[in-house]
Amino acid sequence: MGRAAVASERSPLRDRFAAVRSLTLELTDRLSDADASVQSMADASPAKWHLAHTTWFFETFVLRDHVAGYALHDERFPFLFNSYYEAEGRRHARDRRGMVTRPTLDEVRAYRAHVDASVEAAWPTLPAAARELVALGCHHEEQHQELLVTDLLHLFSENPLEPALFPAERKVPVAMPGPIGWIERGEEIVEIGHAGDGPSTGLGTGFAFDCEGPRHRALLSPHGIADRTVTNGEWAAFIADGGYREPRWWLADGWAWVKAGAIGAPLYWEEQGGGWTRFGLDGRRPIDPAAPVTHVSFFEADAYAAWAGARLPTEFEWEAAASAFEAADGNQLDAAGAVEPRPAEGGAAFFGDVWEWTGSAYRPYPGFRPQEGAVGEYNGKFMSGQFVLRGGSCATPRGHVRASYRNFFYPHQRWQFTGVRLAKDL
Amino acid sequence: MGRAAVASERSPLRDRFAAVRSLTLELTDRLSDADASVQSMADASPAKWHLAHTTWFFETFVLRDHVAGYALHDERFPFLFNSYYEAEGRRHARDRRGMVTRPTLDEVRAYRAHVDASVEAAWPTLPAAARELVALGCHHEEQHQELLVTDLLHLFSENPLEPALFPAERKVPVAMPGPIGWIERGEEIVEIGHAGDGPSTGLGTGFAFDCEGPRHRALLSPHGIADRTVTNGEWAAFIADGGYREPRWWLADGWAWVKAGAIGAPLYWEEQGGGWTRFGLDGRRPIDPAAPVTHVSFFEADAYAAWAGARLPTEFEWEAAASAFEAADGNQLDAAGAVEPRPAEGGAAFFGDVWEWTGSAYRPYPGFRPQEGAVGEYNGKFMSGQFVLRGGSCATPRGHVRASYRNFFYPHQRWQFTGVRLAKDL
Amino acid sequence: MGRAAVASERSPLRDRFAAVRSLTLELTDRLSDADASVQSMADASPAKWHLAHTTWFFETFVLRDHVAGYALHDERFPFLFNSYYEAEGRRHARDRRGMVTRPTLDEVRAYRAHVDASVEAAWPTLPAAARELVALGCHHEEQHQELLVTDLLHLFSENPLEPALFPAERKVPVAMPGPIGWIERGEEIVEIGHAGDGPSTGLGTGFAFDCEGPRHRALLSPHGIADRTVTNGEWAAFIADGGYREPRWWLADGWAWVKAGAIGAPLYWEEQGGGWTRFGLDGRRPIDPAAPVTHVSFFEADAYAAWAGARLPTEFEWEAAASAFEAADGNQLDAAGAVEPRPAEGGAAFFGDVWEWTGSAYRPYPGFRPQEGAVGEYNGKFMSGQFVLRGGSCATPRGHVRASYRNFFYPHQRWQFTGVRLAKDL
Amino acid sequence: MGRAAVASERSPLRDRFAAVRSLTLELTDRLSDADASVQSMADASPAKWHLAHTTWFFETFVLRDHVAGYALHDERFPFLFNSYYEAEGRRHARDRRGMVTRPTLDEVRAYRAHVDASVEAAWPTLPAAARELVALGCHHEEQHQELLVTDLLHLFSENPLEPALFPAERKVPVAMPGPIGWIERGEEIVEIGHAGDGPSTGLGTGFAFDCEGPRHRALLSPHGIADRTVTNGEWAAFIADGGYREPRWWLADGWAWVKAGAIGAPLYWEEQGGGWTRFGLDGRRPIDPAAPVTHVSFFEADAYAAWAGARLPTEFEWEAAASAFEAADGNQLDAAGAVEPRPAEGGAAFFGDVWEWTGSAYRPYPGFRPQEGAVGEYNGKFMSGQFVLRGGSCATPRGHVRASYRNFFYPHQRWQFTGVRLAKDL
Repeated sequence: MGRAAVASERSPLRDRFAAVRSLTLELTDRLSDADASVQSMADASPAKWHLAHTTWFFETFVLRDHVAGYALHDERFPFLFNSYYEAEGRRHARDRRGMVTRPTLDEVRAYRAHVDASVEAAWPTLPAAARELVALGCHHEEQHQELLVTDLLHLFSENPLEPALFPAERKVPVAMPGPIGWIERGEEIVEIGHAGDGPSTGLGTGFAFDCEGPRHRALLSPHGIADRTVTNGEWAAFIADGGYREPRWWLADGWAWVKAGAIGAPLYWEEQGGGWTRFGLDGRRPIDPAAPVTHVSFFEADAYAAWAGARLPTEFEWEAAASAFEAADGNQLDAAGAVEPRPAEGGAAFFGDVWEWTGSAYRPYPGFRPQEGAVGEYNGKFMSGQFVLRGGSCATPRGHVRASYRNFFYPHQRWQFTGVRLAKDL
Repeated sequence: MGRAAVASERSPLRDRFAAVRSLTLELTDRLSDADASVQSMADASPAKWHLAHTTWFFETFVLRDHVAGYALHDERFPFLFNSYYEAEGRRHARDRRGMVTRPTLDEVRAYRAHVDASVEAAWPTLPAAARELVALGCHHEEQHQELLVTDLLHLFSENPLEPALFPAERKVPVAMPGPIGWIERGEEIVEIGHAGDGPSTGLGTGFAFDCEGPRHRALLSPHGIADRTVTNGEWAAFIADGGYREPRWWLADGWAWVKAGAIGAPLYWEEQGGGWTRFGLDGRRPIDPAAPVTHVSFFEADAYAAWAGARLPTEFEWEAAASAFEAADGNQLDAAGAVEPRPAEGGAAFFGDVWEWTGSAYRPYPGFRPQEGAVGEYNGKFMSGQFVLRGGSCATPRGHVRASYRNFFYPHQRWQFTGVRLAKDL
Repeated sequence: MGRAAVASERSPLRDRFAAVRSLTLELTDRLSDADASVQSMADASPAKWHLAHTTWFFETFVLRDHVAGYALHDERFPFLFNSYYEAEGRRHARDRRGMVTRPTLDEVRAYRAHVDASVEAAWPTLPAAARELVALGCHHEEQHQELLVTDLLHLFSENPLEPALFPAERKVPVAMPGPIGWIERGEEIVEIGHAGDGPSTGLGTGFAFDCEGPRHRALLSPHGIADRTVTNGEWAAFIADGGYREPRWWLADGWAWVKAGAIGAPLYWEEQGGGWTRFGLDGRRPIDPAAPVTHVSFFEADAYAAWAGARLPTEFEWEAAASAFEAADGNQLDAAGAVEPRPAEGGAAFFGDVWEWTGSAYRPYPGFRPQEGAVGEYNGKFMSGQFVLRGGSCATPRGHVRASYRNFFYPHQRWQFTGVRLAKDL
Repeated sequence: MGRAAVASERSPLRDRFAAVRSLTLELTDRLSDADASVQSMADASPAKWHLAHTTWFFETFVLRDHVAGYALHDERFPFLFNSYYEAEGRRHARDRRGMVTRPTLDEVRAYRAHVDASVEAAWPTLPAAARELVALGCHHEEQHQELLVTDLLHLFSENPLEPALFPAERKVPVAMPGPIGWIERGEEIVEIGHAGDGPSTGLGTGFAFDCEGPRHRALLSPHGIADRTVTNGEWAAFIADGGYREPRWWLADGWAWVKAGAIGAPLYWEEQGGGWTRFGLDGRRPIDPAAPVTHVSFFEADAYAAWAGARLPTEFEWEAAASAFEAADGNQLDAAGAVEPRPAEGGAAFFGDVWEWTGSAYRPYPGFRPQEGAVGEYNGKFMSGQFVLRGGSCATPRGHVRASYRNFFYPHQRWQFTGVRLAKDL
């Protein structure tokens, strides 16, 4: 039986499972054992942990719970590689994940191979509930792919040698984007959120995380939203104008953060020879003034907006505007290309490049209910103190993001590819 | 000319100024110099600082800015008694306010008297803009009256002797409230916020802080809101059911807070002889099961709601419901009575007793713009990381609160008189 | 019976008790209730606490333990005013002593009066053991008199107004001291330590704290010890030469302390108008270049010595040299004068002015045994991590210090009147 | 020319250099890249760092300074692998050493090979000063060999899987040691310290670190010193008697350390199934009651001595007693055996097994002068806050320790193989 024939027997979900699992390996194939094991800060996790934790998800919720007779690959791994699932028992302290030099990277890869083979072998007999969990596991792993990339970037930035993980791509010079245009809208009731009621087996647009629903009606006030994000060049002007030294642009918590951390530029920026450089997965290079600014915190985004006489969009304004565009077209993560925001090339690029801070606190939609059981601890736990980001970034796997997608981080965090789109009241 | 004649010449604002200034003094008349000088935590300020800071407001924005030839009472006071007004120059570090043993309490009282007399003397010639600032200063001082009372409660609770600041009132036994009733409402667009555009000279309902506006339309989802707040008796049942030991009721940040602080009951509660007691301004006493629970954090309020199968109301749901009631009827602060939530006496007491945590993050309304100038730093600076509370408490001065009033604190804070009203989706 | 007659019946110990108790009151008679209640840092205690703790000592170990039928003045005070006496039961946390605004300063003064009167009344019947404890309590109170003064200085320095507790004394200009002379000595076995075996009832030189003994023989190496302490003028030269910016003069821990605290001068020094000023109990004034430098840490003292090509003396070298001089002649604390190091006036002033850091860690002498019982927890507990200082200061009560006296502080501490005497190897 | 002929030309120092460099590699040959890269706490360094730092020493002080034309292996390494040598320029922050995943372990091994070959090639022309530095570098590397082993033990203990780095040795059961015998001595002047004046090229006993001198005379008081160290069995009795719960045995700082860290047993001990186990390089196993207790802090050692009615020896008492024994006989580190204290086998084993805390603070000897230049920053920098340990441990390379050897750690540290020998006054 030839390869095509086999493929024809495969469901899209089974292909997606294989593709997702494979991309994670590709993203990590240049890593040394140490690169994969070290934890550079409490917010980040070692690459090895991401590799194992995503595997633990499938082993636990698919194999252990739905495949009769499945024996754990290693009885000790659940304690090591569980994360926030309190219902699943004790966990290894989050900020000590970098202590686990054993199992090695190769042993974790073997763990992946074992679980992948077990899922493949069990596929024909997997019940629908298990397949739903496979789909959820794929989306879960895609989230970790992005974290894996940004955590590695942070780790490499902490090495005084500033090594490049990926080779630099040749950059095609791009013209500077023109001035911001505004997409305007009057008062209107819009439908917000994903139509499904929490996670489902659907692929692509059929799937959503629990926090994206329930779909509900929301009232927008008259406003305009920018047709592109803020650029590095514009950000350099903010710095040159004393933006980081002037308290009136800043929220009180943001100003305290600036003072305590002696913050004066986006993360990974450094002034060298009179110009700004940034550190990326291809090493340290001059900033591209035409590219979207990234690695800024909510505090910085909010201060920039105040300085620019604008504000951040609400997540509803963003979703209403983005729904007119196709998520698939953005500059996102795949195995081949560079992981870096690219200069905006005209049009309203709502997807990819940089996550866009909104002015909306991450809170539940009307009618939101956490799912029952361990998997249900998923997103609702984090609904205090964080802000919503929308649109995905250059590190978000292709196909992972959609208009209703809600990412969330604390207002001081900026090691993700986070950027700024402006809005204004009409 | 007799006293009645003089009074007849007085404007309501002038009377209000006198009344507010007088209440602050009455609230502090039992304090020793040390009681008034010590700072018990970074969140709290010494009573003396409240006395002086509220005075500094009038001296700076009314006398200095609007009364020709006014000389500062003491050139050194602005540095000591400014607070968050960055535009007004350097400030004494907030967490070192308790170091200022000089000026003494008596000297601060003299500062008050001097400024009060100066305002009175200048009254006939005060321009309208200055009168507006007097009105704003009265509302500002009322805010500090509440903080003054709660900061003193915290200070006294830190003294192992647990002294009573006020004598205990004789308590009239009250029947336990019946089960919660639900005020239900379908989808509806409502008007939210104060009609005015920021602070104004209006008295009573005519005034609002900048963050209460602009008035705008908001869409409510179908929901029910409880007709009373949660009681001490109900809270004791939550504790007895292991509410503080069960992570599934808690937000992740809340659970971390519980573990880090070994939290197991509302602030000021202590188990003694098999029953719960609470510390109050009248000392330590058994809890009253019929009275509203207070001194709970947002985290606790949210966990309780999850345990009860409900949720917290949004600030819009709360405002829509409360608008049907009269703010003036609540159990609020005045010079005479005890400062303590009282058993709910039937009816929907939306005002007084306890501030009610809402599920809404404290963020600007559509069209919100901070005011220009120093006074304009007022509220917008704090719009990250905090949650909105509504309704006022037993420590809120009478006349200070209204349906549109937005108070805000961080989700872990609980030294204010904070409580819980439940809501549910329909 | 006349006053003279009564006096004639009084023992020297009884007089000493009255004098010591009276001096403490005099030192605090200018304090406001708040001055006496606030704690400015964890290392310091409120003046009220010193007033009460020293009283608690007499009430507990003399009255409670030795006077039949004595009833505690207030049952709650032992918990508040015990300090490090673990054997005496639970204690109020050291860093929360500033929370105790009640009892007031006046109530603590009443506590003092009650205990003083009770001791006086019980005097004729006090057994010898109780009299020994009275003597110990006097020495204990003298230690607290010095802490009281230095803690107040620290508190006042934290007030941005920098108030003066005492009026400034008119300063008589004094000639700059000449270059340091060296008192030299060859290898020699000397007797070190106090002859007594721990505390005793002896007055004056008859008394010693437990850590000053047992007297034992020690071998000195050939060395020279300076005939005066380092002056402010010499210290300013050290600063001007970059002393605080050059790591090679500093111990590793000291350099870390300099960097972490951005230390660049002695505590309370501030550059104003191109010259150095210092804050003292008489307010802020220019430094006197001829006076001994003070408020320097061990780290600073050690770095200065390295810069000067010298070292600190050992405590044995110091004691051997100081034994030739009379302790009573120094510039020490009494009710009348200013509390400030004075320009050295010739001769080898080993006593008074400033405590002199030695290079000796605070460790037990051969044969040292802690005393049994609660009082015995006294000094041995602190024999790790601290360095010995010798000679007393301008804040040490007259009669309290002697050649064998061992004071001790951590190497970073400098809120005491601490200074530097150099030594060198021969 | 054959291999034998070459060897015959080799000096003892050249052999020593080869042997030391080789042992370091052998100690690390089981490590994964991650094992070698992770830093488990600020006090510890990654194995890779030890491998590189010891190599940097030879490259810098021998090759760079004394071999014409030598080019650095990598210009970026000095910044990464310098440690406390301030004079050598900026250094990578100590607590971020674990961020350096690149260079890899293999690249660091290549660095070692390059430097070793360069030293070998330059050997015939090395001036005497360079050979002295080779000798110093060997002793320096031996110090790091011990740290390397103890840092790895700490790292592996932080892994919840508690992996064993080395296979377990079969243990020969050993009889329990008898009661402690006392080596007594009256008052006596003894010679203390190494005769040399700082580091020298001498091999074996000819070498000493700067802090071991100058040799000088010291006076001992009459005392007894135990003829063996305290055992695990004796320590278990201390625990069972409540030793960790009784403040009177503890120094104040020690008691604070016990409370803050909830300390109740030596580091790496854990109660399992009613008995005590310890973690070692061969994994977790039951304690051997006959073996010396180890991984105890100075605070614990001091408390145990107080409980036992004894005290710790001074470093002079220890050195005087140990001088009668041969350092070469102890249980020390070599490539073959287990790294673990063994049951004392009779006789006075002053060397090997466990470092013995003395009661002496680490301070300079009379006449001590730091060496000039970068190498001279060596030991004098650390002479505050630490206590002296003597005798070497099972992780100290054979030939590295001697009677005059002064090791030093802070009183709370216990990740080294640290134990207790008692002493008493006569």
